[in-house]
Amino acid sequence: MDRLEMSRRTLLKQGSAALTGWALLNTLRVGAAPAVLAQAGAEVLPWLEQPAENPVPEIIANQLTWEDLDSWVTPNDQFFSIAHYNRPEIDADEWHLEITGLVKQPLTLTLDEIKALPRQELTFTLECSGNHGLPFFWGGIGNASWAGAPLAGLLEEAGVLDDGIEVVFWGVDAGEETIGEQTVTQHFARSLSLADAMHPDNLLCYEMNGEPLPQPNGFPLRLIAPGWFGIANVKWLQRIEVWDTRLMNRFMARDYVTVRQEGSEDEPVWTQRSVGRALLKSAPARVVHSNGHYRIDGAAWGAPIRHVDVKIDDGPWRRARLDRTQRAEYAWSFWSFNWANPTPGEHAITTRAVDTAGNVQPAADDPLLANKLTYWESNGQITRTVEIPT
Amino acid sequence: MDRLEMSRRTLLKQGSAALTGWALLNTLRVGAAPAVLAQAGAEVLPWLEQPAENPVPEIIANQLTWEDLDSWVTPNDQFFSIAHYNRPEIDADEWHLEITGLVKQPLTLTLDEIKALPRQELTFTLECSGNHGLPFFWGGIGNASWAGAPLAGLLEEAGVLDDGIEVVFWGVDAGEETIGEQTVTQHFARSLSLADAMHPDNLLCYEMNGEPLPQPNGFPLRLIAPGWFGIANVKWLQRIEVWDTRLMNRFMARDYVTVRQEGSEDEPVWTQRSVGRALLKSAPARVVHSNGHYRIDGAAWGAPIRHVDVKIDDGPWRRARLDRTQRAEYAWSFWSFNWANPTPGEHAITTRAVDTAGNVQPAADDPLLANKLTYWESNGQITRTVEIPT
Repeated sequence: MDRLEMSRRTLLKQGSAALTGWALLNTLRVGAAPAVLAQAGAEVLPWLEQPAENPVPEIIANQLTWEDLDSWVTPNDQFFSIAHYNRPEIDADEWHLEITGLVKQPLTLTLDEIKALPRQELTFTLECSGNHGLPFFWGGIGNASWAGAPLAGLLEEAGVLDDGIEVVFWGVDAGEETIGEQTVTQHFARSLSLADAMHPDNLLCYEMNGEPLPQPNGFPLRLIAPGWFGIANVKWLQRIEVWDTRLMNRFMARDYVTVRQEGSEDEPVWTQRSVGRALLKSAPARVVHSNGHYRIDGAAWGAPIRHVDVKIDDGPWRRARLDRTQRAEYAWSFWSFNWANPTPGEHAITTRAVDTAGNVQPAADDPLLANKLTYWESNGQITRTVEIPT
Repeated sequence: MDRLEMSRRTLLKQGSAALTGWALLNTLRVGAAPAVLAQAGAEVLPWLEQPAENPVPEIIANQLTWEDLDSWVTPNDQFFSIAHYNRPEIDADEWHLEITGLVKQPLTLTLDEIKALPRQELTFTLECSGNHGLPFFWGGIGNASWAGAPLAGLLEEAGVLDDGIEVVFWGVDAGEETIGEQTVTQHFARSLSLADAMHPDNLLCYEMNGEPLPQPNGFPLRLIAPGWFGIANVKWLQRIEVWDTRLMNRFMARDYVTVRQEGSEDEPVWTQRSVGRALLKSAPARVVHSNGHYRIDGAAWGAPIRHVDVKIDDGPWRRARLDRTQRAEYAWSFWSFNWANPTPGEHAITTRAVDTAGNVQPAADDPLLANKLTYWESNGQITRTVEIPT
């Protein structure tokens, strides 16, 4: 069994021998016990507030249920997916990728040709930039190991011309858009600046957790731009085009734009920016009760995590314990917090992540969030409520 | 009298002595006679079609009347101006410019401090990217000599940090915008990539044709980004801010976006790009009748002009004569065409410019234009009609 197919749940079923194998395969481990392994006889306390019903199931599928989070790598069949238009079913034998536009040598590649290129793999927690921004949307996140061919090498092979500044990624998926007074059929597209596109970690990804990329996640090929919100990770990719101007379509310039009041007190201005790189964030996943002990589990991501703090009700911030057995540069870190002797009744649990540069996940009244008009890039501290039984 | 205050009309009034002085001051002259000087007893034939009445006089003021074009440098009081919000009247003594954001050393400069910096001057034909795109909008163009402090030097002095990729130019002018479901007061802003902003010809401009920048054109300070359509040349400038993300406001991402069908025949896609650099273009200005001779005058701009062709009705393209006495890198070139023995009646006059790289101003049925959905960047060949009297 490929390690990437192996969820934490599978590991538990297979026992400690498998666990040892798993741990050996993870590069960043410092001997601490995994934080969020389910325990025999453990009981998960449901959060009192639950997300609203998803009004757009045709757009957003398979959200993470935080209480069920027990696997650092999200199994493919549990991974969320979002489709802005259709979810095309592509015959990989008919499909090919074009690299074109302002290049010296346009390229056309079959899937087999892409798979024959040097293979690169990384674990990356992909989050939708709208996650936690809407009452029904708390589970637009998952962590996977992605494999594919480095994008930079292919762009170098094609030879970007001097006036190329923008790399546009076109999907097969298409739908109707009204622009001005006309309705046109538009393909999904997102762009990166040439400098961002050339990042050595970007992948033309054909494999997710050791399996071919699932259809809802972009089969046969998607961009994986680690460190960026989901929208940049274009699915059902069919053409990469180098431009000398910037793309200003719906997904760069109308949707997925953060509107915020900034400037000075004297001269406040409304700024509008396309959502970009993932932001520092943490979330409580669940409260576990076992043999009279309570523990809060959660995850933190979006930046190299230094530590995570937990606050119960209006108490002080207290340090959680980071799971150092399962870490990767672009992946979430799991954490846990032993909650000693909670009193019966309702309790509000808030967490904040702090990154290695000392940045703190903002509270809701932080000007960065309080002055934001749009729901994108919601990385404010999350409070969830649980009831401790008498 | 400063040479920059001197229009062609003024020159004519002052006679040949002044003309000689003018010619000496122009760097690119090869001895040819100026092409579009009015002649004694000359008669301008009006075009049969005329622009529709301007429905937005509060937005667009002072359009060029092509038949009146007799001055390579447009006098300040004849220069078009466009205001998206208000046209603020700024007290220069109260005003200052901030250079801030992702810089090592934010700067605040008074107008006197900016004027004390090394002065740079260039002649630049500024055209609105909507010009010729709407039935009432044919005169959104003018040529001026602009003077100011180079922007690059000030950005260097401020010291752009490594993560700075975008330079946002904020105007004092502001108005209401509805974003999503909320209405906010928004300042005018446009951005350039850092690379574009650092172009050595960009000016923080306080002087137009030797006079302080007129109020409708941005007093006390505007950006002059030569080679770019008007929208980039931010007026009433008050703050320059370096960002690590791109600006996606109305003027970058919603207005001033060209929508065009591109891609291959198999896979057409709708592209959307912010208007950017000026495009190769020419326009017939007027037909002049003098002593039984007819001459067509016009201008060409947007790229280094190799030549201009003129077509009468369905006749062949014939070469116009470029005025080489008055040329500058970013300025329009005047041209004229001696029209021998036109027959009485209506005639359609079409022109096309060809740049030094061999690019040809496109015809209306060129796919570049035929596949364009929006009116911005209308650089198609222009046909105007004149009646030759019997």
